Amino acid sequence: MARVVVDVMLKPEILDPQGQAVQRALPRLGFEGISDVRQGKRFELEVDGPVDDAALARIHELAETFLANTVIEDFTVKVEEVAEAAK
Amino acid sequence: MARVVVDVMLKPEILDPQGQAVQRALPRLGFEGISDVRQGKRFELEVDGPVDDAALARIHELAETFLANTVIEDFTVKVEEVAEAAK
Repeated sequence: MARVVVDVMLKPEILDPQGQAVQRALPRLGFEGISDVRQGKRFELEVDGPVDDAALARIHELAETFLANTVIEDFTVKVEEVAEAAK
Repeated sequence: MARVVVDVMLKPEILDPQGQAVQRALPRLGFEGISDVRQGKRFELEVDGPVDDAALARIHELAETFLANTVIEDFTVKVEEVAEAAK
């Protein structure tokens, strides 16, 4: 069992109204010094079996076709934790 | 300038219908071997000035009071990249 994290963020050139709303609210709430906020999605996938190159390629494909809209979004795939074989 | 990332995920004991919907759709789409999916939010904050302990404490407070609902959500704060002083 391993956890693979897929982060999906809007591309830098795409307007992010959610992030802007957060950023504009911050000074009002007393938090200064944050010049930009972008909001995206984080998917945590629990993968059965080993996370080898084939599994990662499959997850990459999954993220590209299903989790992200690659016209407007970028994504990254990261292996976050690999439990011991005994588990 | 530095980028600080705040990841906000539903607590493990809280039902995640979005993640479940993704997980259930995967076999239909030809992706087997993923036993669980959780979906959360990722905030990328561009911080002016140095990211020292005081700044991180402030961002922690911001995440706790504003970005996450700590009744149902957990969050993590990570410094992702620190640009050179020359920038």
